[in-house]
Amino acid sequence: MRVYLDCFPCFLRQTLDAVRFVTDDEAVHEAVLREVFELACHIDARQTPPAIGQQIHRVVRQMTGSRDPYRQRKQDANRMAMGLYPRLKDQIRRSATPLETAVRLAIAGNVMDFGICNSLDAAALTGAIDRALADEWNMDCLGEFAQAVNDARDILYIGDNAGEIVFDRLLIEELPREKITYAVKGFPVINDATREDAQMAGLTDLVEVIGNGSDAPGTILDDCSADFRKRFEQSDFVLAKGQANYESLSGIDKDIFFVLKAKCPVLASDLGCDIGQMILRRSNSASRGVHRGRKEKTDARF
Amino acid sequence: MRVYLDCFPCFLRQTLDAVRFVTDDEAVHEAVLREVFELACHIDARQTPPAIGQQIHRVVRQMTGSRDPYRQRKQDANRMAMGLYPRLKDQIRRSATPLETAVRLAIAGNVMDFGICNSLDAAALTGAIDRALADEWNMDCLGEFAQAVNDARDILYIGDNAGEIVFDRLLIEELPREKITYAVKGFPVINDATREDAQMAGLTDLVEVIGNGSDAPGTILDDCSADFRKRFEQSDFVLAKGQANYESLSGIDKDIFFVLKAKCPVLASDLGCDIGQMILRRSNSASRGVHRGRKEKTDARF
Repeated sequence: MRVYLDCFPCFLRQTLDAVRFVTDDEAVHEAVLREVFELACHIDARQTPPAIGQQIHRVVRQMTGSRDPYRQRKQDANRMAMGLYPRLKDQIRRSATPLETAVRLAIAGNVMDFGICNSLDAAALTGAIDRALADEWNMDCLGEFAQAVNDARDILYIGDNAGEIVFDRLLIEELPREKITYAVKGFPVINDATREDAQMAGLTDLVEVIGNGSDAPGTILDDCSADFRKRFEQSDFVLAKGQANYESLSGIDKDIFFVLKAKCPVLASDLGCDIGQMILRRSNSASRGVHRGRKEKTDARF
Repeated sequence: MRVYLDCFPCFLRQTLDAVRFVTDDEAVHEAVLREVFELACHIDARQTPPAIGQQIHRVVRQMTGSRDPYRQRKQDANRMAMGLYPRLKDQIRRSATPLETAVRLAIAGNVMDFGICNSLDAAALTGAIDRALADEWNMDCLGEFAQAVNDARDILYIGDNAGEIVFDRLLIEELPREKITYAVKGFPVINDATREDAQMAGLTDLVEVIGNGSDAPGTILDDCSADFRKRFEQSDFVLAKGQANYESLSGIDKDIFFVLKAKCPVLASDLGCDIGQMILRRSNSASRGVHRGRKEKTDARF
């Protein structure tokens, strides 16, 4: 998905959030913002939002000298989510449809996104969970997802954010874990999950966790390591969590289930849904029959 | 009030709104946005938000060739407000405290601000009116305002936006109109009211209406005509409507009643109030006793 001009106000806000996490020095805030303006003057607007976000957050890190401006927020988010884990695990256990409940929760966890909002309190998170469990949704794509899981030998689950990764763990625990490889970012960017977060969430003890070799939000394949690209290609299908993975992978010819909450008007417009809507959508490429001979695209939303 | 870095994402959004009002050509949208980035790289961040807004909207007008990108929206806003006028006039007539009701309505009208939001529907406006009439408020400053009106011979009422100007008319009709001069912008900028809007609202038949000679949102005195500055200085006090007038006049040594709705987090923070709060606040200079020997500042909000 190509960047929209409406993304630029949001990039500026994100820049301010990031630099303020590192320092209270307003001269630094202003200097970084001006550098981002310089970047924006000449940026190639045919890129995806994650490609532009990558460049902006490199500027933030270089100018502030902070390798990981969101580190504290990521750890807080992991702890918040781990605090909820026992109750959520119990909800899945008691559910008559545990896979559905786990998918709903995995989407609820996608609210933990500092790229969209610079703070997250426990009340907002539990509110999102309650809504995710109660909202009506179209079950069609869930059945297709369950079938794809059953048919696959090798599933690449591409994670999104710290904190949210705990909700991914809940879903992975409902899947045949031996089939799953979980991918995190190679280097810190915004609050995207890295190996450190996968460890905090207990995912490294559960499945193979690989880094993608990149410091871009989302998954820019050309920027990822050769190893990651090979795993991507060899997988039977990909589960891609969150907005940035949709933005960077929606044009890729691969069987992908996008699992996310549509959190901004630009993305909701691109997806043709309402803001706040929970999305489980299979990529268009599945309809081309290039993977496992499927003939029809099921584009279910819930 | 100096610009905050948080204003810049909002300037970008405003730029996109303005340019989209003029053309659907996305190449033009992008070119204008890039020009605003260029401007922002080197802008003096010690200026007020209206001073920066002035430069940005000059870029929009120059690059699009549109003298007045918001003209249609302004006319629509005037018509929408004129449609409500008879009912609101009746509410003031039936009110036990007509001046208070008129001030409340004048503040409610301040929601008609395309600098903050790029659309306004009738439901949002009537909702704002209902809240403005129902909300609790501190009466202290209203009494002081009534006293100042009574004592003054010459009051300069500085308007804000098209549409909103109809609500100003409702207030002016509750005041001794012979004391009042109403000021509009000298040239179009955003949806700020100009003489054309004053005519549509019926204000030109009611009081003397003057242009300020400027194309800045708010009131940047150095940018206004000598005639306007003279009227400003000679007035016994100023009633300044809206955020941009607060942003540009809050540091000026003059007896000013700021009448506005705090619509953005930056301004609410500067005012020390909540977003959405209605403000009737007398400027600090009144406390210095430089006007009519007043010794105390009353800083009432409602």
